[in-house]
Amino acid sequence: MAVQINEGIRRLFQLPELILQSGNRLSEAVLAYETFGTLNTAKDNAILVCHALTGDSHASGSEDGPGWWDGLMGSGKALDTDRYFVICANVLGGCYGSTGPATLDPETGKPYAMNFPTVTIRDMVQAQYHLVKSFGIAKLRSVLGGSMGGMQAFEWGVTYPDMLETLIPIASCGRFSTMGIAYNNVMRQAILNDPDWNDGEYYGKTFPEKGLNLARRIGMITYRSFSLYEERFGRSMVPTADPYAMDSEYQVERYLSYQGEKLVSRFDANSYLFLMKAMDLHDISIGRGDYGETLAQIQAKTLMIGIDSDFLFPASELKQDADFLQRMGKPAVYRELNSIHGHDAFLIEFEQMNEWIKQFLEEGKV
Amino acid sequence: MAVQINEGIRRLFQLPELILQSGNRLSEAVLAYETFGTLNTAKDNAILVCHALTGDSHASGSEDGPGWWDGLMGSGKALDTDRYFVICANVLGGCYGSTGPATLDPETGKPYAMNFPTVTIRDMVQAQYHLVKSFGIAKLRSVLGGSMGGMQAFEWGVTYPDMLETLIPIASCGRFSTMGIAYNNVMRQAILNDPDWNDGEYYGKTFPEKGLNLARRIGMITYRSFSLYEERFGRSMVPTADPYAMDSEYQVERYLSYQGEKLVSRFDANSYLFLMKAMDLHDISIGRGDYGETLAQIQAKTLMIGIDSDFLFPASELKQDADFLQRMGKPAVYRELNSIHGHDAFLIEFEQMNEWIKQFLEEGKV
Repeated sequence: MAVQINEGIRRLFQLPELILQSGNRLSEAVLAYETFGTLNTAKDNAILVCHALTGDSHASGSEDGPGWWDGLMGSGKALDTDRYFVICANVLGGCYGSTGPATLDPETGKPYAMNFPTVTIRDMVQAQYHLVKSFGIAKLRSVLGGSMGGMQAFEWGVTYPDMLETLIPIASCGRFSTMGIAYNNVMRQAILNDPDWNDGEYYGKTFPEKGLNLARRIGMITYRSFSLYEERFGRSMVPTADPYAMDSEYQVERYLSYQGEKLVSRFDANSYLFLMKAMDLHDISIGRGDYGETLAQIQAKTLMIGIDSDFLFPASELKQDADFLQRMGKPAVYRELNSIHGHDAFLIEFEQMNEWIKQFLEEGKV
Repeated sequence: MAVQINEGIRRLFQLPELILQSGNRLSEAVLAYETFGTLNTAKDNAILVCHALTGDSHASGSEDGPGWWDGLMGSGKALDTDRYFVICANVLGGCYGSTGPATLDPETGKPYAMNFPTVTIRDMVQAQYHLVKSFGIAKLRSVLGGSMGGMQAFEWGVTYPDMLETLIPIASCGRFSTMGIAYNNVMRQAILNDPDWNDGEYYGKTFPEKGLNLARRIGMITYRSFSLYEERFGRSMVPTADPYAMDSEYQVERYLSYQGEKLVSRFDANSYLFLMKAMDLHDISIGRGDYGETLAQIQAKTLMIGIDSDFLFPASELKQDADFLQRMGKPAVYRELNSIHGHDAFLIEFEQMNEWIKQFLEEGKV
């Protein structure tokens, strides 16, 4: 495993000691972050972008390589870097520069591995809060993200309700579903079953490639739709002398295996475990009353975007949350992406998203 | 692994040498089967029931323990054993008495393991054909089954079109979907990644428990629905001193793990691999023209039953096939089970199925 990071543009932010949701403390932690555009003198043009499970701070591209949300970011786009100052930080527990299980534990001088404390979505958001405050920003124009990034947006809306004007969770949820927990269970088990995982103590030894590869394959199935796989791969086989051989492969299998290999080359297996646990534990209502009461604590204008083909984060759940907020008299709207791409549409369907998000940021409505 | 078989009621049928779809030959193979009810003197009251991936010949229960389709079989039910003679055989490649990878290879005296020839759904059906013929049955009243059992029903309809009056595929397909192949890929990989699998040579050694357990967990996720998991388990945790511990568990995880353990105690890992391959290779049109032309070779009256919450075998695909047959002037009807249970509804929603199947068998229409 060789995590490739654009060292040129990434900066490190030293966090104060954090008291985590679990009650544990984390000291000497850092967040790796990037900024795009310029913070104005009033410091009122800042937007926080939150990344998904295997994402990083490089939301937008430059000479340092393309960013994962280039379709939404840049001159003239929804997140117009001529107007807005966009911040994106690698999450706590990640492996793109922020403190995570691969980081050296200052107490032992060795990687934390499984001794890293469990971090939650709420902890990630607390860390981002300190970063935002360090710029002297009192209020964000928006917090937005897809999938695990949207979970952070939900937490922001409830934890710091007066610090954001708008909130845009995409293909996400205020609490992780049972089905989501089930899929994380099998992805986790895929890693734990790999003898090379070695209770997490693989740093400097053999990386648990097979385990992480399998976990990623499972993930990739859930990120796409039935129709997309049907249309793209159908029943095509990888050319072979004997299609009846037990190791003959369909094109979709080759694709999954390739996606697994790609992730193994860029992501830490223990980070994958910690971030999945953070998703499992995600529920904005923990310690705050019931789910509806908690949701009603959101003060920001909220745009919820669901994806009609999303199997993992059903559009109906986001719509339900938006409807609830409306009934509570809150300024919430719901829009639905029509896409064959499934959950990953939030990384693909930029035309619809640009229009809605641009208008929402400018006018506070769609 | 200890496969438990009701030896008391199961009979063995010695197959002639089979020429498999792959062109390979399989000699000295047997089918383990059971029958329910009595074959009449005209031999025109026989029905063939085909089982799903991890099923067996014990479709209906007796003093030897409950059967997997008791809800549909027995006096007064759709498959009324007072009227019909029902045959159910363990599939070729299975591990409930029929010849499969755990069987001793007559040439070596050792288990076939991965030297077992690849069998297809068509091969399973060919083997069943010989069994049916051995009773002197010229025409079956019906062939029916769910999931992999429905695949066999589809193949029966095309391979022996004049041997069945009616055909009832449930929650199944005439060719396996890309998504299905994708899920089989990760289930297969889960087994292959287990060092105890040992290239299939684990007989008499350590069984690949972790691998098969994980494969089953993945399967169980796809057999149920988002709503069912939500309703049954929600976000409930298994009681623990520290919910933030990395090994804390949600109830749905405990359930999946239990299901994995149950399968490990009753199923052979190599059989699982061979049967998944058979599903992957399933496409009635192979060697027969295009899919529509092939479907049109069905002569039997056909009742296709889809399940509205089935993620793995979408109801829309079955409906599409039924619509196509209707346009071709064939006597085909489509019915849809309304169920929260997902794919597994074919093992659960007996009320609706009983009504439709009973009427279809008696009147040839619903």
